[in-house]
Amino acid sequence: MIDPERAAAQAEEGFARMWAELLPVGRHSRSGGYRRHAWTAADAECRAWFEEQARARGLAYEVDGNGNQWAWSADPAAGGAIVTGSHLDSVPDGGAFDGPLGVVSAFAALDLLRETGAAGSRPLGIVNFGDEEGARFGVACVGSRLMTGVLDADRARALTDDGGMSLAAAMEKAGRDPSALGRDEERLSKIAAFVELHVEQGRNLGDAPIGVASAIWPHGRWRFDFHGQANHAGTTRMEDRRDPMPAFAAAVLDARERALSAGALATFGKVAVEPNGTNAIPSRVTAWLDSRAADPAVLEALVAEITRASGAEVVRESYTPVVDFDGPLRDRLAGLLGGVPVLPTGAGHDAGILASAVPTAMLFVRNPTGVSHSPEEHAERPDCLAGVAALARVLEDLLADPVSPGPAR
Amino acid sequence: MIDPERAAAQAEEGFARMWAELLPVGRHSRSGGYRRHAWTAADAECRAWFEEQARARGLAYEVDGNGNQWAWSADPAAGGAIVTGSHLDSVPDGGAFDGPLGVVSAFAALDLLRETGAAGSRPLGIVNFGDEEGARFGVACVGSRLMTGVLDADRARALTDDGGMSLAAAMEKAGRDPSALGRDEERLSKIAAFVELHVEQGRNLGDAPIGVASAIWPHGRWRFDFHGQANHAGTTRMEDRRDPMPAFAAAVLDARERALSAGALATFGKVAVEPNGTNAIPSRVTAWLDSRAADPAVLEALVAEITRASGAEVVRESYTPVVDFDGPLRDRLAGLLGGVPVLPTGAGHDAGILASAVPTAMLFVRNPTGVSHSPEEHAERPDCLAGVAALARVLEDLLADPVSPGPAR
Repeated sequence: MIDPERAAAQAEEGFARMWAELLPVGRHSRSGGYRRHAWTAADAECRAWFEEQARARGLAYEVDGNGNQWAWSADPAAGGAIVTGSHLDSVPDGGAFDGPLGVVSAFAALDLLRETGAAGSRPLGIVNFGDEEGARFGVACVGSRLMTGVLDADRARALTDDGGMSLAAAMEKAGRDPSALGRDEERLSKIAAFVELHVEQGRNLGDAPIGVASAIWPHGRWRFDFHGQANHAGTTRMEDRRDPMPAFAAAVLDARERALSAGALATFGKVAVEPNGTNAIPSRVTAWLDSRAADPAVLEALVAEITRASGAEVVRESYTPVVDFDGPLRDRLAGLLGGVPVLPTGAGHDAGILASAVPTAMLFVRNPTGVSHSPEEHAERPDCLAGVAALARVLEDLLADPVSPGPAR
Repeated sequence: MIDPERAAAQAEEGFARMWAELLPVGRHSRSGGYRRHAWTAADAECRAWFEEQARARGLAYEVDGNGNQWAWSADPAAGGAIVTGSHLDSVPDGGAFDGPLGVVSAFAALDLLRETGAAGSRPLGIVNFGDEEGARFGVACVGSRLMTGVLDADRARALTDDGGMSLAAAMEKAGRDPSALGRDEERLSKIAAFVELHVEQGRNLGDAPIGVASAIWPHGRWRFDFHGQANHAGTTRMEDRRDPMPAFAAAVLDARERALSAGALATFGKVAVEPNGTNAIPSRVTAWLDSRAADPAVLEALVAEITRASGAEVVRESYTPVVDFDGPLRDRLAGLLGGVPVLPTGAGHDAGILASAVPTAMLFVRNPTGVSHSPEEHAERPDCLAGVAALARVLEDLLADPVSPGPAR
């Protein structure tokens, strides 16, 4: 059986090597943050790194029809596979940990299992889900949503980036065939359990280096279009203006107040102004609302109120219902890891999407500052290695006894 | 002597031809607005058009060291030249009239003067000032400011566009030598008077197709940097955020209220968000304030109050003091045109810059909707032709008797 302390020490060198290899990829020299957006050159570099890791370990490497990368210890055709992994893409100027920590830890955990002879013969899969952050095409978890059929293939192909390029065209440019998108029943049927390790994104773990996820808050993105009339900023009286900027500004303040009193989250983090000239009253301000709450009814009411008060034209671009992770699996992991904290998160994850199709669990690694989606995102190395050891222990147990049929399944 | 009604009819065909030639240049197919930013391909097309007009009329064509284009009816070396013209560049998605109306009217007026034999032998110059709108490098009236020494040449060369390209590099790319920038004493000393015709940008002319400018309000641009800390929009409690967006929003509403009560203008029309991701709390919001008022003290107090209330880091990027156009010249023009309205404007113009160096006047052509800096900007053709006739009448008079020394000069 894997011993957590010994395993952490054993994993150190391999983890450090992989971490150092990924660190410079897609890093912006000025901001220090990552710009690894789906189907860009930086994304291709991350993917090449993944393939290298798979091949160097003699794993069977493949890319599925939805653009997700897989590395297998044994042929998954027989079924009952245990899968772990996360994503390598980033938000604009994101941190180094959100995503890559789960993929690097997956390879490091596999190495530990092999070293200790615990890998066994059951297929263990490592996955890099494509376009988790949705930074380029506006919809998050595209790879896992397509695989589970939560996102329609035609809708996905038609998504466009800020430059007007469609997802289909971007995939083709990156050498992928966009006609192959869609629910992957065959693959899903072979997976007995999925475990995603991820850096925690608040400061909710306190003294514990590791935790297990209980649930993901329901969350979504809404596009707000505030319409006005472009005019000269130097000649149009304040009284005569149809300036959409004050309406947008009022919505920002309104959303904050309402979220505070609802105990929920509401963020306008992306804005596009037309024509965006210093001496031109805008014709339009477009802003995207990200909103989340523990209770779906609270979230629905909150967004409805913000929408009504804004006077804007509002379109829901994505919505992810509340996810309660598999109860028996969650309890089993928490028990295996010696009673670590079990906590919910407001952040979406591929695991949240997979949970609708296969027994799924998440492990969190402590975030000492609570900062995420920022160049300052950080996790201490000992906590990361504790994460690798915990993941290895969990995989060891699942490989030996993949599913405990329970009342909740 | 030029007869206004007959002249308008005579000018119709030539005006219509020139207008039709310029109309498609730099027009954005989706917005219908113009994107003729300094030293871009669209700007080069406008400049080629200007050169063609000059050469087709046998005018002496030249580009000065500051990138302004000139067409001369006779060698200006002897001095006492009368100059008219405006600019051909645009704000983002600007209208067809702001700038080009003054240049097209200048050529049309010259044609009228020649047809009626009123051109005489005194040098008449037509100018296209470069980069009037400042849409690309953030400072307006670059060509005229450089020529008069109001803008330092080194500062101008170092200005950068949103892509990080310097003005110097952009000029070089367009085949101009940026080392030649600077005050053009020689040229200024040859100009007896400058008259700029421009579309009016409010609805202040009422029943009159033509007006004469009295003054330009003092105006400026200030950059507001609201600093925060990037973080995950889905995991950071509202209470824990350092989100700069609400501070920006409060400043937008505050600026509007203060401008309304001061009878002044304040506009946030340009915004840049970092990192501008849907699920990322911004690390920084940068917004540009354009503010103007009849009274410099009111403007100064207004911007100081907005700055103080905002908590932002504020840098003044440009400032143009109040301009009172030459009194005797203004009165002479109003008289020549039969007592047309004399009115101030909140919009900056190259004429406002030239006024510090040479006797300068402006003619306004009626704007029926008051819309400007917008694809919807419009002036009726009969009003435009009345403008050409008025400009021809004014030039005829100035060519015959360039300067009336008066008490105000």
